[in-house]
Amino acid sequence: MQNKKFIAVIGSGQATAQEIKLAEAIGKEIARRGAVLVCGGLGGVMEAACRGADSENGTTIGILPGDNRDTANPYVQIPIVTGLSHARNVIVVKSAQAVIAVGGSYGTLSEIGHALQNGIPVIGLKTWSLSKDDKPYTGIITVNNAADAVEVAFSLIPDQPDKK
Amino acid sequence: MQNKKFIAVIGSGQATAQEIKLAEAIGKEIARRGAVLVCGGLGGVMEAACRGADSENGTTIGILPGDNRDTANPYVQIPIVTGLSHARNVIVVKSAQAVIAVGGSYGTLSEIGHALQNGIPVIGLKTWSLSKDDKPYTGIITVNNAADAVEVAFSLIPDQPDKK
Amino acid sequence: MQNKKFIAVIGSGQATAQEIKLAEAIGKEIARRGAVLVCGGLGGVMEAACRGADSENGTTIGILPGDNRDTANPYVQIPIVTGLSHARNVIVVKSAQAVIAVGGSYGTLSEIGHALQNGIPVIGLKTWSLSKDDKPYTGIITVNNAADAVEVAFSLIPDQPDKK
Amino acid sequence: MQNKKFIAVIGSGQATAQEIKLAEAIGKEIARRGAVLVCGGLGGVMEAACRGADSENGTTIGILPGDNRDTANPYVQIPIVTGLSHARNVIVVKSAQAVIAVGGSYGTLSEIGHALQNGIPVIGLKTWSLSKDDKPYTGIITVNNAADAVEVAFSLIPDQPDKK
Repeated sequence: MQNKKFIAVIGSGQATAQEIKLAEAIGKEIARRGAVLVCGGLGGVMEAACRGADSENGTTIGILPGDNRDTANPYVQIPIVTGLSHARNVIVVKSAQAVIAVGGSYGTLSEIGHALQNGIPVIGLKTWSLSKDDKPYTGIITVNNAADAVEVAFSLIPDQPDKK
Repeated sequence: MQNKKFIAVIGSGQATAQEIKLAEAIGKEIARRGAVLVCGGLGGVMEAACRGADSENGTTIGILPGDNRDTANPYVQIPIVTGLSHARNVIVVKSAQAVIAVGGSYGTLSEIGHALQNGIPVIGLKTWSLSKDDKPYTGIITVNNAADAVEVAFSLIPDQPDKK
Repeated sequence: MQNKKFIAVIGSGQATAQEIKLAEAIGKEIARRGAVLVCGGLGGVMEAACRGADSENGTTIGILPGDNRDTANPYVQIPIVTGLSHARNVIVVKSAQAVIAVGGSYGTLSEIGHALQNGIPVIGLKTWSLSKDDKPYTGIITVNNAADAVEVAFSLIPDQPDKK
Repeated sequence: MQNKKFIAVIGSGQATAQEIKLAEAIGKEIARRGAVLVCGGLGGVMEAACRGADSENGTTIGILPGDNRDTANPYVQIPIVTGLSHARNVIVVKSAQAVIAVGGSYGTLSEIGHALQNGIPVIGLKTWSLSKDDKPYTGIITVNNAADAVEVAFSLIPDQPDKK
């Protein structure tokens, strides 16, 4: 499974109905195409993505901020218990080879920063736009639907041979 | 899978032949009984445990200290990339519901401390013995073979209903 | 000293001449007004801010990403050695009561996200601008010079009695 | 100040009267000799060491596990807010050049493991004793009083030139 593609879906624990729908569709598509879903393990966008992936028999990993595995949403198959509070955001993105941001608040913003800092591609759907020195920053790849988000993620993750 | 039992195997990256053999047998037994293996993802005891679990079609998680997923041993199916160096030891034990220590050096000692601090049972095979105020500390459950180690771990993890 | 105000200065390790000048002036002003400077401990904006604060006999704290205290810039008086790589960014902002961003790249973006997530005010000089849903985000307080940056930071940190 | 010696005092938040007395004396001696005290910032041994150092006009650093700087004991001058829960133990030891353990429970045990793993000398007063393979482990330097503990710590930290 180590040669599977690992894709993070990031977004708010308090998500809009539209974000929930998008995240679930993204989770489904990730699973259908045989990739592994990484997320922060809680509710909102995270739960919707897990529910989608789980419904297609995909693998779902939740990197939890607290000390209690029971805080994971019901569709997390692999709860990782960090106790690190907000610092767990770093692990969500580092454990993925591409990151799909759906909406999102400040935590999502921190994850976008960490992903870009680590050279991990960020694909955005209705998420933060950035600019600096009055010039728009174009490093976040904007897409319009779930299928495109996952297609772009796949296209940017190199194939890896199984090491075994 | 969230209702499966998660068991960590901890020990040195530079292990003796006897430790390797023990760790592999423990990994096999964990997988045969349907539990998930958590470890630090590198070589020695960690690799042996993963090889054992993988050979029995078990699930193997490696919580890596560095920034590079390619440092995982070939039998890690789920590499978690932390970049946290030694602080990843905390996540190895918190993500498990029981910890089996096989031999081990200073990192293993830190993990034993973190497990006990979090109320996670520690089962020991040829690992550190502790005493305080000239009294032996009896909180590490000593066993003599792989089957007993996994049996004790199972007996100490309460059954959990599937939340889905 | 616990009742002093703690202010973080964040920005790139590779800074422009203008950013260096700004950061040094901010560091001086922080020290002159009796606050403590927190930063990431390395070069560029971090070193300039420390040099400024140190020249005015202020206190400078550097939260280092690596395992080696010798990586601190020469003006860090209190090196904190984390070994956490990028996750140390979280500690830089949490240890401060206000954050001043000078320019900055992706790491700075992650720190802005973490600060906003923790309700810590962010004051920006030539740093990232954000928008969402085509609406500019106004939560980063934009200022034009070093004195204003520190003045705003002070105005937003409540006075605290000494607990001793 | 970067060329000062940084010494951690570790031990339980629930300490005996004897441990409190020892920790306070150690804190005083560290300050008198011009070193900086690092600790976990909370009560018990940590507070006693800070109170001792503060009474001799020393510098005290508290690496806090939670998100709230107000959890620091009243004698912490430099509160470092990590939000990392138990993983902050790693930072306490890495930020020091020698570690003095006074009594202590499981958290202290984890810190002893992390210190030894990082090659940082550990000096023990009424703390854990370790053995492996029925042989006592002699890497913890046992002393009998506060002055000896600090004397040994100083003797093991090399002098460093000021980098400025």
